[in-house]
Amino acid sequence: MNPRQLTVLAPGLLGGSVAMAAKARAGLSVDRVVVWARRPEVRQALAAQPWCDAVASTLAEAVVDAGLVVLAAPVEKIIEMAEHVAPLVAPGAVVTDVGSVKGHLTRRCTAALQGRATFVGSHPMAGGAKTGWENGSADLFVGRVCFITPLPETPEPALTRVQRFWADLGSDCVTVDPDTHDEIVAHISHLPQAVATSLANALAGRPDAWRNYAGGGLRDTTRIAASDATMWVEIFQQNRDEVLRALGTFEDHLHSLKTAIANGDWTEVRRRLETGKTYRDAFRPLP
Amino acid sequence: MNPRQLTVLAPGLLGGSVAMAAKARAGLSVDRVVVWARRPEVRQALAAQPWCDAVASTLAEAVVDAGLVVLAAPVEKIIEMAEHVAPLVAPGAVVTDVGSVKGHLTRRCTAALQGRATFVGSHPMAGGAKTGWENGSADLFVGRVCFITPLPETPEPALTRVQRFWADLGSDCVTVDPDTHDEIVAHISHLPQAVATSLANALAGRPDAWRNYAGGGLRDTTRIAASDATMWVEIFQQNRDEVLRALGTFEDHLHSLKTAIANGDWTEVRRRLETGKTYRDAFRPLP
Repeated sequence: MNPRQLTVLAPGLLGGSVAMAAKARAGLSVDRVVVWARRPEVRQALAAQPWCDAVASTLAEAVVDAGLVVLAAPVEKIIEMAEHVAPLVAPGAVVTDVGSVKGHLTRRCTAALQGRATFVGSHPMAGGAKTGWENGSADLFVGRVCFITPLPETPEPALTRVQRFWADLGSDCVTVDPDTHDEIVAHISHLPQAVATSLANALAGRPDAWRNYAGGGLRDTTRIAASDATMWVEIFQQNRDEVLRALGTFEDHLHSLKTAIANGDWTEVRRRLETGKTYRDAFRPLP
Repeated sequence: MNPRQLTVLAPGLLGGSVAMAAKARAGLSVDRVVVWARRPEVRQALAAQPWCDAVASTLAEAVVDAGLVVLAAPVEKIIEMAEHVAPLVAPGAVVTDVGSVKGHLTRRCTAALQGRATFVGSHPMAGGAKTGWENGSADLFVGRVCFITPLPETPEPALTRVQRFWADLGSDCVTVDPDTHDEIVAHISHLPQAVATSLANALAGRPDAWRNYAGGGLRDTTRIAASDATMWVEIFQQNRDEVLRALGTFEDHLHSLKTAIANGDWTEVRRRLETGKTYRDAFRPLP
């Protein structure tokens, strides 16, 4: 086993960017980047990329020497992938992922690899409307939060290895237990997606020309409605309970604002506008 | 009366930008820019601006020679301002405004000026979180929609004068009746504000650190929550019925998405995500 070999399985936008960034930035902690993809034509395209030292045609070949393995498959395939690679990984390897939901996944992957390798869940808060490794970038994680979600039994050295890896890629690491992670992202990521999608849905039924009359407000508020539908169906499936709770909280706030407007309670309307402004003004500037 | 004198009354962000842009861009249609503000210290500050040819200390002095008058007061003060200037404006002057709600306002201002001057409502879709003429710009209207809201009885030459003025400032003019205007902006401007404010309200109750974990999605979706509360109380007051209708439509869509997620109806969840994506992908690029 080469502790400095990074293997990325099934690279998409995030996995491809992990490989690119590791090659460009990870320095001493990574000296070899190996990737694997299921489809031969994708493997052929990957083999031509300067950030791939080798493209493996089997999972076994991909992981046999790797000190660090990143499971970059879509979130609902990650557990299955962990189960597949469990008998194949080098003993003592550290395995992480880039999945956007962590509670159930972290427990299942940890159990699947138990006794062979150590799983430490990761969730880099990066990406956007575009998908595919072709849209990846070595800078994708710079200044972005990466959640790292150890369980109480996760060995400290594996946790440190994964924290250091993401820090090398430019991320701000936030270490939090997997269930709290899912509650947080339901609010700060999944709820905004549901809201932007519903706002776009409400406007999609009105005349086409209206969208072009919009100033920056509608444009910004709906931007993430253009995100990949397949990815978001998976996220809503995986984090259903927390998403429903966050949606319920939002519905209550929206309904209270609507009621205050309907009642002409302008003191309450102002209070809600001011609370929102105070909240938003406190965002840290983008790097 | 000098048909090429532009007078801007009570300039804020929009009125100040109108004066700056007219000086920089309106060319032959404007050769003199006069402004008026109620407070002496504001008049003194305005007098030092290169885009002010003169600062009037009374409304009468401000409008007596003006061919084009822009009422730039907050939306709920515009009707009162039209009533004040009606006996003072030059006979035959054209009067417009920058108010963001138009139905009631257009009818009242038209009636107030009847027989003396012609009112043609305007609503430039520009501006943002910042207020005050100090934050204005001669380029604020470039590539932005400006609604122009004539009544059936509005004389063609006055309408053409106002359309040409905004086109000279760089706007894309959209001419529409005042009530349709209010329905449109309830959906494309006032609803996104209510949604962004409510999303910020829902998150304001959660731990402070969460906001700094957010990627671009929450940042964009809540950006306009930082807008000026006073301005938005006025807009919600002025366009209450249309805003409530738009909020009702949005609530229905949000509730349908929530129900589909709760029921595990992933076909319906996907349909809603795809409809939203199709809607958002069709936005024209920003200039």
